[in-house]
Amino acid sequence: MTTLDEAVRTICQRARHAARKLAPRSRADKDTALHAIAQALEDHAQRILRANAADLEAARERGTKGAMLDRLMLDESRLAAVAASVRQIAALADPVGEVITRATRPNGLRIARVRVPVGVIAMIYEARPNVTVEASALTLKAGNAVVLRGGSEAARSNAVLAEVFVAAAKSVGLPGDAVQVLPFTDRDGVRALVQQSEFVDLAIPRGGEALIRFVTDNARVPVVQHYKGVCHMFLDTGVDLAMAERIVMNAKMQRPGVCNALECLLVDANDALRLLPPIAKALLAAGCEIRGDERARELVPAVKPASTEDWGHEFLDAVLAVRVVDGLDAALAHIADYGSGHTEAILTPSEGNAERFRREVDAACVVVNASTRFHDGGEFGLGAEIGIATSRLHWRGPMGLESLTTMKWIVDGEGQIRT
Amino acid sequence: MTTLDEAVRTICQRARHAARKLAPRSRADKDTALHAIAQALEDHAQRILRANAADLEAARERGTKGAMLDRLMLDESRLAAVAASVRQIAALADPVGEVITRATRPNGLRIARVRVPVGVIAMIYEARPNVTVEASALTLKAGNAVVLRGGSEAARSNAVLAEVFVAAAKSVGLPGDAVQVLPFTDRDGVRALVQQSEFVDLAIPRGGEALIRFVTDNARVPVVQHYKGVCHMFLDTGVDLAMAERIVMNAKMQRPGVCNALECLLVDANDALRLLPPIAKALLAAGCEIRGDERARELVPAVKPASTEDWGHEFLDAVLAVRVVDGLDAALAHIADYGSGHTEAILTPSEGNAERFRREVDAACVVVNASTRFHDGGEFGLGAEIGIATSRLHWRGPMGLESLTTMKWIVDGEGQIRT
Repeated sequence: MTTLDEAVRTICQRARHAARKLAPRSRADKDTALHAIAQALEDHAQRILRANAADLEAARERGTKGAMLDRLMLDESRLAAVAASVRQIAALADPVGEVITRATRPNGLRIARVRVPVGVIAMIYEARPNVTVEASALTLKAGNAVVLRGGSEAARSNAVLAEVFVAAAKSVGLPGDAVQVLPFTDRDGVRALVQQSEFVDLAIPRGGEALIRFVTDNARVPVVQHYKGVCHMFLDTGVDLAMAERIVMNAKMQRPGVCNALECLLVDANDALRLLPPIAKALLAAGCEIRGDERARELVPAVKPASTEDWGHEFLDAVLAVRVVDGLDAALAHIADYGSGHTEAILTPSEGNAERFRREVDAACVVVNASTRFHDGGEFGLGAEIGIATSRLHWRGPMGLESLTTMKWIVDGEGQIRT
Repeated sequence: MTTLDEAVRTICQRARHAARKLAPRSRADKDTALHAIAQALEDHAQRILRANAADLEAARERGTKGAMLDRLMLDESRLAAVAASVRQIAALADPVGEVITRATRPNGLRIARVRVPVGVIAMIYEARPNVTVEASALTLKAGNAVVLRGGSEAARSNAVLAEVFVAAAKSVGLPGDAVQVLPFTDRDGVRALVQQSEFVDLAIPRGGEALIRFVTDNARVPVVQHYKGVCHMFLDTGVDLAMAERIVMNAKMQRPGVCNALECLLVDANDALRLLPPIAKALLAAGCEIRGDERARELVPAVKPASTEDWGHEFLDAVLAVRVVDGLDAALAHIADYGSGHTEAILTPSEGNAERFRREVDAACVVVNASTRFHDGGEFGLGAEIGIATSRLHWRGPMGLESLTTMKWIVDGEGQIRT
């Protein structure tokens, strides 16, 4: 074992011990800690912002600018929002101990399946320092220990944030090792972390596709992925034009840079002449570039030709791929070929087609007659989320508190034996 | 890519296509197929038994005998039991489409979380050919495609069983590729199978620790493990002696070779003088070897000295490790150090100690005042099971139909957009 592996192993072993101590703690204990943490973030605002200013300065010297720099930046109001989100997490119901199923067997045994913490979670993410606090608060509330591997750009901010977080948690009697920052921000550190199968129960990578692929390829622990959102919307024959225009504009243009934004519009050939020209006009007027197939370009000459790379592409920008398809079957086939399993939508007046779409599309979220932008933990009423999972196993979609728990079977008897 | 990798990839890709076709099929379609399959197993009994006889003959020539040979063996009555279990699976409720949670948001959106099939499952197992049918029937009922990698010893039996299964499924219109047998039974075949992350959603290895370790170390797909069951039982002060003796005898001796059999008895020092001698006497009289620590041997001279390897050991035989411990805290510490997360039990008259045990022990199943042998899908009322998962993620404990599903979020609106 290398020195790095040994150091990472020691951190994860400490996390396992902390997880054991944390798992049976009451909701009141965890919420008291979260309120103390929110208060500490406010009390130590100047220290945190000084560390963040040093991260920003170093990033500027390396030539970082624009959106990247903005993601790294904390200020008084962003820090206040982080503290507020910690208090919101304290206000959420505690999933631990919740009874999922309960039955009494003919022999009198009472068998319950209850929610328990997952254990030790490895959170691997990139620039934004608010994730350091919000992910830690969510994992703590669900009774888990977390090992954080943030981006090197935010190393100073993350170190101070975690220090403030841990000091506040310890001040009310929670184990300090429940939140630890991995001091190795490079790929070797990530690799060592996701191979600690003895101590780490779940890895959650959030970031670019290369990071997620690296984690998946190297992990010896379960991974819940947050891959890209290549979201499609199918406009079925007969759909109300005003509704379709409103929803397409919202799904594509309200916030083009997020994973639940629309990337590809599929229009039924039977009704494309009525639907596509006015919707394309509205998109173009709003500054959206449209890349379409031949049939779309015949209907709307301002549409640029799409290349094969535009299908299944996550633009994260004011760019939309458009394809005219022969009905629902062709739309389903396109989505099966090019979707990323994130969010897929149909706008239709036909309940029959809606039901086929709900049943046959394989994605974390299927939307009927609404915007793809609703696929979000807050919009679903889950409270805060740690991301939107595109994996199939363990959890799918917005990862709120429940997704950070697993189950335990409890059998209660009065002396029963098996015959 | 090697030829092997390409061949395995093609099989898994076909499984993915079959899974897509199978996922939206109704319960009636799947149950019709299961009844046809049960009938076909009976109709083709002679062919199946001839293939099994050839496997048995080859195994005998290699020197296989005893329990191993018995596990491999099919006869008319075992085959009838397999057909009956397929009909029992048909009788189980279909988990697919079940609504897990449902809510209407303030904006009128209706948000449901429903169960859907996992997709493609890779089942990796060893000798017993009945698993070929039972695992396929369970995965089919939950709407999944399966790729089976059975042991080479049962290759002829498995090939005929799968052929009969698939022909019956196809005869009633289900996709034939829903069940495929991997023709590569060596480790390279397993490795190639569990690396098909594009097509395989879940690997379930069942067998020896070396096989499970190999799958875990080589997988690029999620794995639900079925590790060993090192089951402990703690006898608390004041427990009724007759109940304790009855339960210990049942847990250890009813079927010592299974994963939910007792392997280590922990006795509270405060009451060991009353409890241990009579229970040890009953165990010894029944032919059980006892290996104990110094304090146990002081109370019962016939107890052999335990070595450190006896703690945390899965004997799978009429052998029991016994340790006298200082109260509940010491028992919890022993279980945390040596338990395998399978089944842990406490026998106690104290509800306070029972509750601490339920909360603080980290295992798939915690049992209070009953035998560890109840940790079983049938005993829990789940119907058939594909195994007992000791993993924490996705599922824990008996894997019935529900464990072979995942979730999908369905959002229904009337034109809502996000503001």
